[in-house]
Amino acid sequence: MNRSNTYPYKIQPQDVDFQCKVTTASLINILLTTAGYNADENGFGIRHLNVINCSWVLLNLAVEMEKIPLQYEKITIETWIENVGRASTIRNFVIYDSKKKKIGQAISNWVMIDLNTRRVQDLFNLKSIRNFETNISLEIEKPMKLNSIDGNLVDSFKVKYSDIDINGHTSSKRYVEWISDCLSLDIYKEKQLQRFEINFMNEMFFGNEVSIFANEITENDYRYEISSLEKTSCRARMVMRNL
Amino acid sequence: MNRSNTYPYKIQPQDVDFQCKVTTASLINILLTTAGYNADENGFGIRHLNVINCSWVLLNLAVEMEKIPLQYEKITIETWIENVGRASTIRNFVIYDSKKKKIGQAISNWVMIDLNTRRVQDLFNLKSIRNFETNISLEIEKPMKLNSIDGNLVDSFKVKYSDIDINGHTSSKRYVEWISDCLSLDIYKEKQLQRFEINFMNEMFFGNEVSIFANEITENDYRYEISSLEKTSCRARMVMRNL
Repeated sequence: MNRSNTYPYKIQPQDVDFQCKVTTASLINILLTTAGYNADENGFGIRHLNVINCSWVLLNLAVEMEKIPLQYEKITIETWIENVGRASTIRNFVIYDSKKKKIGQAISNWVMIDLNTRRVQDLFNLKSIRNFETNISLEIEKPMKLNSIDGNLVDSFKVKYSDIDINGHTSSKRYVEWISDCLSLDIYKEKQLQRFEINFMNEMFFGNEVSIFANEITENDYRYEISSLEKTSCRARMVMRNL
Repeated sequence: MNRSNTYPYKIQPQDVDFQCKVTTASLINILLTTAGYNADENGFGIRHLNVINCSWVLLNLAVEMEKIPLQYEKITIETWIENVGRASTIRNFVIYDSKKKKIGQAISNWVMIDLNTRRVQDLFNLKSIRNFETNISLEIEKPMKLNSIDGNLVDSFKVKYSDIDINGHTSSKRYVEWISDCLSLDIYKEKQLQRFEINFMNEMFFGNEVSIFANEITENDYRYEISSLEKTSCRARMVMRNL
């Protein structure tokens, strides 16, 4: 039994931005898809959880990148379960370039929810996952608890058909796109992502009114808050480095 | 030399909507990616055109679907060049399900533009493509010239970072998402896509103001117009069938 596994991926045209660099949203989407494959292979994927009327929900995520892959670049994602608590489980990722050089790392926290009550379930009842606990952690800082920001309203709109996924709520990829859209093209020309982190707090559904707030709290440390119906749905942070 | 080729694809979680069905935007994105692979393999891909400072631009597209693939379904796309005119070239697609049953067809028209002048170039100067002309057409109707509509303004916003692709203009996938977002979830529950067609007219760039107009001109025949800076950037049509 392999408690970690690697998955190849080739960066596609739809994954890159105007500078040919993979977008943070596509990169995170690739990580989440990889998590899905790995959980499925190991017997605790969404389709296994659906049998007991449950599903995985991402609670928070932190990604640190040393190098940003370009269009058609072949990367490899290694992923494993670090630990399994009663309330949540930690899954780690390492991203390698085609020469097997480590170019990024990510840490994610997941909860299992009941699809009717939307409440968090006890992971000690999910026996299949506990054999995959490795206790292998990464060097990067875990996702931090992000505080409320005194941000400026930068955009507002409604949740639409293409924003929602199979769970009926806004997809993780779309949140990251909305956050990435707050920076100007000039910033993307001068800087590159160093660390992205996100805390998911409340789901957003079709038709909900979305407000996006942003603020650069210190140089290159950008904070975001997305709210809907007076509830915070997520907070995020982008740390950029000058090129 | 194979003048047509087939490409396998597995429908991913990010490709499906709240009902587990592939979205029209993802489906079209899969077709365009396949077109890119096929052109690249045959020596007239974007990177070959970039050498002469040119690129492919999609002029129009029509897709007809008999069955909508679901998440994790394996499909195969067959694609070939029907003909090459001086001004544009026709590329066809057939979509098969995992049992090799034909479930969809698509016809696309492409022009080659100069990246500086943005003007259409003479395809008779692109010798590599002419060996791949098959004169094999499909049974479905070619993309029609869509007329201006007397539509209602349904949405307006600005073109953002995640909307633009490597060419610096709004990606084709995003146009299709904006159009698909005009229908309610109830319509998606009651109806399914039969035919989608789109005419691209003017590019849209970062920061441009976008207005989306829509109208159901006869039952199940939805028309769209997207405009920016008082120019029409595209017109589209969705024909739905009752389930």
